[in-house]
Amino acid sequence: MHLLLLSNSTMPGAEYLSWPRQYIADFLQVNKEALFVPYAAVTFGYNEYTTMVQQAFLPLGIKITGLHMVVDKHAALKNAGTIIVGGGNTFALLSRLQEEDLLAAIRQKVLAGTPYIGWSAGANLACPTIKTTNDMPITEPAAFDALNLIAFQINPHYTSQSIAGHGGESRQQRLREFLAMNPEMPVIGLPEGMLLQRTDKRWLLQGNGSEPAVWLQAGKEPRTLTSGVVDLPL
Amino acid sequence: MHLLLLSNSTMPGAEYLSWPRQYIADFLQVNKEALFVPYAAVTFGYNEYTTMVQQAFLPLGIKITGLHMVVDKHAALKNAGTIIVGGGNTFALLSRLQEEDLLAAIRQKVLAGTPYIGWSAGANLACPTIKTTNDMPITEPAAFDALNLIAFQINPHYTSQSIAGHGGESRQQRLREFLAMNPEMPVIGLPEGMLLQRTDKRWLLQGNGSEPAVWLQAGKEPRTLTSGVVDLPL
Repeated sequence: MHLLLLSNSTMPGAEYLSWPRQYIADFLQVNKEALFVPYAAVTFGYNEYTTMVQQAFLPLGIKITGLHMVVDKHAALKNAGTIIVGGGNTFALLSRLQEEDLLAAIRQKVLAGTPYIGWSAGANLACPTIKTTNDMPITEPAAFDALNLIAFQINPHYTSQSIAGHGGESRQQRLREFLAMNPEMPVIGLPEGMLLQRTDKRWLLQGNGSEPAVWLQAGKEPRTLTSGVVDLPL
Repeated sequence: MHLLLLSNSTMPGAEYLSWPRQYIADFLQVNKEALFVPYAAVTFGYNEYTTMVQQAFLPLGIKITGLHMVVDKHAALKNAGTIIVGGGNTFALLSRLQEEDLLAAIRQKVLAGTPYIGWSAGANLACPTIKTTNDMPITEPAAFDALNLIAFQINPHYTSQSIAGHGGESRQQRLREFLAMNPEMPVIGLPEGMLLQRTDKRWLLQGNGSEPAVWLQAGKEPRTLTSGVVDLPL
């Protein structure tokens, strides 16, 4: 399996999709055509979203087609060189893929070897479920089950910071609640500016976060992860 | 209907449930026995949660019984003088009430005039759905439909602040996404330290937030609300 799972698209103030550009270029050396899933967009349109991504991928020589533009979506998925799932709202993304019955097709295609790139909601979609998303549940999916391509959950945009003077749960408290309710399922907290790359034989942690990634398991102390090859379940 | 819907239980650094104490005392002048629903607790037990709330309500002369301790829960709800629903994780709270088939009983009881107090997740529970919770979806409810006691959504712990240098969606962005997906449903952003009190004839906004409460409707500018009687749908 070939997965590139990014915490986020863009660092605050930086150009869109600029921090992961070189990682994406290296990941897609062979595959220069990609199908883009813009379904996480809520406050802007699929066309606008696809155009943004097309422009960001243009310098890499990668041609992007928006899944929403395609008449036969199952055929397009079957023929896709790469599948890219952008961020936005995870509940909207999952609901729309369920409505069009596309989850199984994406899963099978990626299991068969097609590269998958997802950022933020698109990284959550690769997990067993969407239960570690940060997003507001603005729409109700038929179920929380996601692509189940990996054996753990990702918390994208992970941060140990919280808003000064604000009493709402911190991210760490929210993830402790997840582990209490789902003790069998580990979570990686992936700070902005970091990604996980999976090849058939290993997981690689890359990028420069403002803090380290952290591996969380019920009943164990959090484990800080160092960039490079990481010992995560395959 | 008699509702007291609080953004939060406790200001950072303050004693548990201290800021709303006088409002609760005024609200419960007559009813001195209350049934407490501790089901939003995830990382601590129902007994522990109930004890905390019992101690906080003791100075008010209010006797608290934990719903989890009761054998016949439907009978206990039927006889309750007041129903109190505490904060924690909204998805856990809703799921457990669905599993025990208690939502309709609470709704009918409150519609019939029994006072309802809810903070954070307990305030979200009073809404049409839980779609404006800030909580992580750590467990999957059968549906997002909640008690539907009021005609709008509450966003508890509302803040216009975000974490410096963090690119994840701000609360305001998340609520804009809610409105885009649910244009028929208004939302009140209720900052910590504030509450909404409903009597049969009016809504009253009370407390001292670090910023004003805000009324959000699709296609309209946000409207800042001043404490006192507020013109919200009854």
